[in-house]
Amino acid sequence: MSDRFPLPDLNTLPQDLKDRILEVQEKSGFVPNVFLALARRPAEWRAFFAYHDALMVPESVGRQSGLSKGDREMIVTATSAVNRCLYCVVAHGAILRIYEKKPLVADQVAVNHRKADISPRQRAMLDFALKVCTASDQVDEADFQALQAHGFDNEDIWDITAIAAFFGLSNRMASVTGMMPNPEFYLMGRVPKVKA
Amino acid sequence: MSDRFPLPDLNTLPQDLKDRILEVQEKSGFVPNVFLALARRPAEWRAFFAYHDALMVPESVGRQSGLSKGDREMIVTATSAVNRCLYCVVAHGAILRIYEKKPLVADQVAVNHRKADISPRQRAMLDFALKVCTASDQVDEADFQALQAHGFDNEDIWDITAIAAFFGLSNRMASVTGMMPNPEFYLMGRVPKVKA
Amino acid sequence: MSDRFPLPDLNTLPQDLKDRILEVQEKSGFVPNVFLALARRPAEWRAFFAYHDALMVPESVGRQSGLSKGDREMIVTATSAVNRCLYCVVAHGAILRIYEKKPLVADQVAVNHRKADISPRQRAMLDFALKVCTASDQVDEADFQALQAHGFDNEDIWDITAIAAFFGLSNRMASVTGMMPNPEFYLMGRVPKVKA
Amino acid sequence: MSDRFPLPDLNTLPQDLKDRILEVQEKSGFVPNVFLALARRPAEWRAFFAYHDALMVPESVGRQSGLSKGDREMIVTATSAVNRCLYCVVAHGAILRIYEKKPLVADQVAVNHRKADISPRQRAMLDFALKVCTASDQVDEADFQALQAHGFDNEDIWDITAIAAFFGLSNRMASVTGMMPNPEFYLMGRVPKVKA
Amino acid sequence: MSDRFPLPDLNTLPQDLKDRILEVQEKSGFVPNVFLALARRPAEWRAFFAYHDALMVPESVGRQSGLSKGDREMIVTATSAVNRCLYCVVAHGAILRIYEKKPLVADQVAVNHRKADISPRQRAMLDFALKVCTASDQVDEADFQALQAHGFDNEDIWDITAIAAFFGLSNRMASVTGMMPNPEFYLMGRVPKVKA
Amino acid sequence: MSDRFPLPDLNTLPQDLKDRILEVQEKSGFVPNVFLALARRPAEWRAFFAYHDALMVPESVGRQSGLSKGDREMIVTATSAVNRCLYCVVAHGAILRIYEKKPLVADQVAVNHRKADISPRQRAMLDFALKVCTASDQVDEADFQALQAHGFDNEDIWDITAIAAFFGLSNRMASVTGMMPNPEFYLMGRVPKVKA
Repeated sequence: MSDRFPLPDLNTLPQDLKDRILEVQEKSGFVPNVFLALARRPAEWRAFFAYHDALMVPESVGRQSGLSKGDREMIVTATSAVNRCLYCVVAHGAILRIYEKKPLVADQVAVNHRKADISPRQRAMLDFALKVCTASDQVDEADFQALQAHGFDNEDIWDITAIAAFFGLSNRMASVTGMMPNPEFYLMGRVPKVKA
Repeated sequence: MSDRFPLPDLNTLPQDLKDRILEVQEKSGFVPNVFLALARRPAEWRAFFAYHDALMVPESVGRQSGLSKGDREMIVTATSAVNRCLYCVVAHGAILRIYEKKPLVADQVAVNHRKADISPRQRAMLDFALKVCTASDQVDEADFQALQAHGFDNEDIWDITAIAAFFGLSNRMASVTGMMPNPEFYLMGRVPKVKA
Repeated sequence: MSDRFPLPDLNTLPQDLKDRILEVQEKSGFVPNVFLALARRPAEWRAFFAYHDALMVPESVGRQSGLSKGDREMIVTATSAVNRCLYCVVAHGAILRIYEKKPLVADQVAVNHRKADISPRQRAMLDFALKVCTASDQVDEADFQALQAHGFDNEDIWDITAIAAFFGLSNRMASVTGMMPNPEFYLMGRVPKVKA
Repeated sequence: MSDRFPLPDLNTLPQDLKDRILEVQEKSGFVPNVFLALARRPAEWRAFFAYHDALMVPESVGRQSGLSKGDREMIVTATSAVNRCLYCVVAHGAILRIYEKKPLVADQVAVNHRKADISPRQRAMLDFALKVCTASDQVDEADFQALQAHGFDNEDIWDITAIAAFFGLSNRMASVTGMMPNPEFYLMGRVPKVKA
Repeated sequence: MSDRFPLPDLNTLPQDLKDRILEVQEKSGFVPNVFLALARRPAEWRAFFAYHDALMVPESVGRQSGLSKGDREMIVTATSAVNRCLYCVVAHGAILRIYEKKPLVADQVAVNHRKADISPRQRAMLDFALKVCTASDQVDEADFQALQAHGFDNEDIWDITAIAAFFGLSNRMASVTGMMPNPEFYLMGRVPKVKA
Repeated sequence: MSDRFPLPDLNTLPQDLKDRILEVQEKSGFVPNVFLALARRPAEWRAFFAYHDALMVPESVGRQSGLSKGDREMIVTATSAVNRCLYCVVAHGAILRIYEKKPLVADQVAVNHRKADISPRQRAMLDFALKVCTASDQVDEADFQALQAHGFDNEDIWDITAIAAFFGLSNRMASVTGMMPNPEFYLMGRVPKVKA
């Protein structure tokens, strides 16, 4: 974070934030900076992660999504790259590599999704997400039909739209406040784990 | 709403949504479409309005903002106009007129904020908000200093950024799902109320 | 008008300008600022309004147009919004509301014509007008055919082109000289007239 | 002209148009296509050339301009190049070469005015004209002051603005209707005349 | 050339550069500035002209191209105009006029290739070249097929791509270093040669 | 490579290409695809790598550069990211990590160089390189002076310009021909080497 928006001390945070953050630390081995950066405003923090979970962990709110976990992270990586958000490209690129089990896919999607080793269905999904990201006022019926040709239904369209829109919010907060990705993210999912 | 995303019936909604919506209806005399449009996904609805309230009704979360209610709606109107979001320009333009007690200001801010009858401080605020909206990757120290020259502090910068970012999310959801502003909004705040 | 280009005193103007301006005042109840702003250069004023009338009041030059009065004002409102010209959006939006008898249509067309409550024919007309406005060098046969599919003929194409082109001139003059819309325009056509 | 908008036969035109056109032909040795192309609508033709003369031949309306004839044609050439209007770049580039007595200047101004062999005052004039052409909504006091630093007054600013705006209209009409420059223009002013 | 990058004295150059330059001078009657401007770095000069010759004089490397000499210069002129490179538009426009034996074609292609008097095959070739120039990341199979419909094969596609790409390099070097076209180029090919 | 431009068989290549390619393979452990992809046109291959070496390995042509090896690769990575060229971002990002001994810097520079952990001098260098890449026609004296303020001289300015320009060529060739980065590049320089 920049000097203007320093990361708060974990111990000064409300208990519910602290609990979630410690849980993430337990699971990931480190605390992703977004959890601390946004915590200086607990009410916004709670809303942000509630929205995040509703979209990115739909089963946590009792919903099934037609998009896989990898699909969702791919949307985040591609749209964050267009918004040139360092935090989200690096952090979500890492998660994308893990979910898709493809060490190269995040860099490909971030630089030019047209050249990425992804399915035609995923290509159509990203074409739509990028239009939501850059020209949402021009999205029209032809765009919906291009998605339907690949089997996406209206709930999937809502998912793609909402994920692109929500991370557009996240991108702007991260870029303006100077949120920096934790060093751990850069390497995650790049090297196949070796079993003992 | 478009045929793809019809408004749900109020009676089918969870009680907490219903309660809030009826409260809004009581206060405004009608239900703004955003409350119904997003309600098809209650978990997202809750997160959206929690985020909305944390930013736009800061006293509801025990916070004071350096931005007035009019300032905040002015940011929403200006950035939504750049994103060409019909719902937000019309709905928040209406609220802006009321808070600022200026029947002309919303149209001015929506068409070209450089020509609007607003203070130099508000002009600087909108210049920053529009950069967050269109080129957040390029926001830098010079932009922060331009705000500070008008008395904005880091908390105000966070507010402007977050409001521009949050309504960027809202704009994308509204445009893609075809959310239409209620007819009531178009005229609100345009005609001075006459006392009996 | 800005300090650089103050509105001239009506009494100092040549008689033909004065006559027309008084006639407009008689009819509208006020003098739209464009009539005074451009009057500091009477020769340009005469050419401007002669051109305006030839396009917008074709019957005044003995011509019938395939575009209705509402169609013509709709083109002005939509293209002026893309050029972000406050004067023309507000003034012609007012006239559009009156001609179309639709209190909401001007705001819709100005913010995002794709979401406006207009006919498919009008949508095609605005698509073409906006291309003339923003990328006239790329207009080609496919654009003409899209208009013809809605029944527009070559004279109509000329009309749409010329109206978009002429108000592009008007937009630039108004924005640079700081022409401000009269307050009367903002409310015109928004409230249905009540008969006694 | 394209098949859609064929040039009318001179003999079918109203007498005043015919007179002016024959006068131009007498003087230039040919009829520039713009005189015929626009003549299919005599009322618009009259307004167009009245406006043209008021700006480009100010002495014809009893006005002196702070811009030289060469300055004015330079604005037309530079802005028409940005609008990619073939007719105006070629026709007005020819006139520019003649007025400035510089066989190379039109190509330079059309391709990149920053590299042209023109005065710093002319460079400032073109910087302003191009902003009027491409971003008139953003013209502000700093732009006016940059012109004043080179000795331009408010009347000159009006002239630059109006010329850029008027030829923006002309560019759009020419591009959409397919107006082609007469072959004579391409070579005019390129070869110094040799006296016998 | 600008003061920062003065043209070197021919006599100070390595013999191979000198030989080629004198040969060009012999043939053209003057030394095109690019030969001197780049010569301040002989190794880069050699690579530049080797690349140039491989693409623009394919027979010099034992290759036949499906593009004519005129086609190749047309690509250079059109793409250099979009990059607003004065040197390349003027110099290669001259060569284009000569090869195509069309005194008007270079200005047409530089201002707006859609209005130029060229074949549909050449129009498709320029559409592709301009996409390589401005949006190479978006070139896809549909673009290749549009070329194939006009008889271009994969070797031709490589040629168009490489010429647009190579002169993009040339444009950037010329613009930044302030390379000015020799006055001779402006008139070349405009006047038909008269036989004695 | 795409089906249209398959990689040639090493054994079919001229001896000088083969020698260089085997030398690279010996040194790197694999053959970077660019060496094979361009080899289908040996004359262009030779010019490309001669140019490459003159700029990127200046000591090979007896020149010292004011830019370090890391500086040069940083320019390539940043400009290739703006051009969205997958091959160059991944391949040169790898080399950048190695030269700068910073495992995170390539991703930072590719996503948003304003957020990268680089020196102010490198930031100025990239600002200039990106202007060469995207708006070379607008580079002017102020841009040169911004570089000089960080100690860059005219030779350095030439280097930055030429590297940005040359890789603009490379980016266009790679994107259009579908050149894919070798998998080896993605991980290079990310993991510190452990000594035995």
